[in-house]
Amino acid sequence: MPAHRRPVDLSKAYRLLNHGPTVLVSAASGGRRNIMAAAWAMPLDFSPPKVAVVLDKSTWTRRLLEESGEFVLQVPTVSQVDLTEALGSSSGLVLSEQSGTDKFDTFGLQTFAGTKVAAPLLEGCAAWLECRLLPEPATQQTYDLFLGEVIAALADSRVFSNGRWHFEGHDALRTIHHVAGGHFLVDGAAVDARPLQPRGTA
Amino acid sequence: MPAHRRPVDLSKAYRLLNHGPTVLVSAASGGRRNIMAAAWAMPLDFSPPKVAVVLDKSTWTRRLLEESGEFVLQVPTVSQVDLTEALGSSSGLVLSEQSGTDKFDTFGLQTFAGTKVAAPLLEGCAAWLECRLLPEPATQQTYDLFLGEVIAALADSRVFSNGRWHFEGHDALRTIHHVAGGHFLVDGAAVDARPLQPRGTA
Repeated sequence: MPAHRRPVDLSKAYRLLNHGPTVLVSAASGGRRNIMAAAWAMPLDFSPPKVAVVLDKSTWTRRLLEESGEFVLQVPTVSQVDLTEALGSSSGLVLSEQSGTDKFDTFGLQTFAGTKVAAPLLEGCAAWLECRLLPEPATQQTYDLFLGEVIAALADSRVFSNGRWHFEGHDALRTIHHVAGGHFLVDGAAVDARPLQPRGTA
Repeated sequence: MPAHRRPVDLSKAYRLLNHGPTVLVSAASGGRRNIMAAAWAMPLDFSPPKVAVVLDKSTWTRRLLEESGEFVLQVPTVSQVDLTEALGSSSGLVLSEQSGTDKFDTFGLQTFAGTKVAAPLLEGCAAWLECRLLPEPATQQTYDLFLGEVIAALADSRVFSNGRWHFEGHDALRTIHHVAGGHFLVDGAAVDARPLQPRGTA
């Protein structure tokens, strides 16, 4: 494992998603694998850490996730913004059926193995959350909403350590937030809230 | 209505939350009202627009929301970061029981009326989404997860128009993303993804 990639304590795993970044969702089943972009993901609980993510019925990642009961959420960086958009606007199923390749081959992606799930983890991201599906068939079918428990987490320690993001000096590793149509906002400055006195008590 | 506050077409309402900002959730019932911060909120569908938000069982906002079947998600700005943290770390129920006031009175908050729901809308935010609860009792009870349909939306047109955020020249209106413990990331630069050619086709 590269020296900068470090495990994140599960009690702090929610902080990898708390600021609402766009994520990449990967899943694998029966020797097939896929990865897609998803802007609609969020933490769902602290301990054990849980997540929620919306996956359209048309996506191949969803099918692989449903088959395997596992998935990975990874947090891409601004260096990966073109890739993120490409992974969000291409179909792994179409690629597979048309050319026998997958998105990893098509885009020349490097991956590494997780510790808990079989889904591939994409190199170069800022964080990774390995998850097992919490099956809720009615919610999945009605709302395309998938819930998972985070069972392992990693982050690039150059930008996340001790439960905090710190992007200063690593602008290329800032995380991204999709607005629409390939237009993203990049993480900006950090700010700490100051105590606010109720009216009349200052 | 101030000139800069404009309705947002419901087909574009998801873009107010797509970048994952921390939101303020307000609700009202039986003459009582409350507002709280929530980092765990996201779009759930495009059309009709839906949202998902996590509300802990201890919160008064949740109780008012369950009673009324309505709520508002509003997107605070960096100018409201101290207030956002204060609204996320104080209890409207405790205030009400101890002093007979609510958070709006306690913090001197200005509100305005929505067009579809009775919950108050907080002045000074960047966007507002009026929602009706989509009741899912099992999901609410098991996961503290609430789903809603967006039935009206507004935004500050100085920073959101034509379906895009544009914060340049309005740094004080940038939206915020909570990490933990009153530490936030502010929206930074915008970036547009460029088309990525599959390997071997360039």
